[in-house]
Amino acid sequence: MSGISHETIGTIGAILTTTAFLPQTVKVIRTRDTQSISLTMYLLFTTGVCFWLVYGLMIESVPVVSANLITLVFSSIILLLKLKERPQLDLSDKDQTD
Amino acid sequence: MSGISHETIGTIGAILTTTAFLPQTVKVIRTRDTQSISLTMYLLFTTGVCFWLVYGLMIESVPVVSANLITLVFSSIILLLKLKERPQLDLSDKDQTD
Repeated sequence: MSGISHETIGTIGAILTTTAFLPQTVKVIRTRDTQSISLTMYLLFTTGVCFWLVYGLMIESVPVVSANLITLVFSSIILLLKLKERPQLDLSDKDQTD
Repeated sequence: MSGISHETIGTIGAILTTTAFLPQTVKVIRTRDTQSISLTMYLLFTTGVCFWLVYGLMIESVPVVSANLITLVFSSIILLLKLKERPQLDLSDKDQTD
């Protein structure tokens, strides 16, 4: 049996799924293009991360709180820029699936 | 103290952060537009979800395995469509931050 503990696997998973939002945040800030990003996704996701944050506080888990605090910052930036971009969109654009 | 247990809070968080990827998947399939989506994000995120899946299997947690299996399907679809879209992009486009 390989000697890698499940804590190590979980920690790598947490680091990857948390830092993953950094390149998307940088891209959105640089290009101000959020056209193909789903507003509904980031509304649901940001709300979900808030629940994970409260969960981490309730079980007093520093890794859960810190990972979700970082993710919350990134997803909130993307969400705010997406909300800012919407009015400029041509509302007649029927492909406005969000 | 409000009576909501931390399991309930965690479950709501898991449902929201998992289902959040469905509207993004639908939008990408419908519009085939992945221009503002970061390839690096979905490479990191999909890899991270695989680690979470292995973690869930190691600790034999059905919720962790099922949530990450669903998320893996959605993020893989978005990643594949993003990889498919890339060659059509004008490579001279200097704003190709990804």
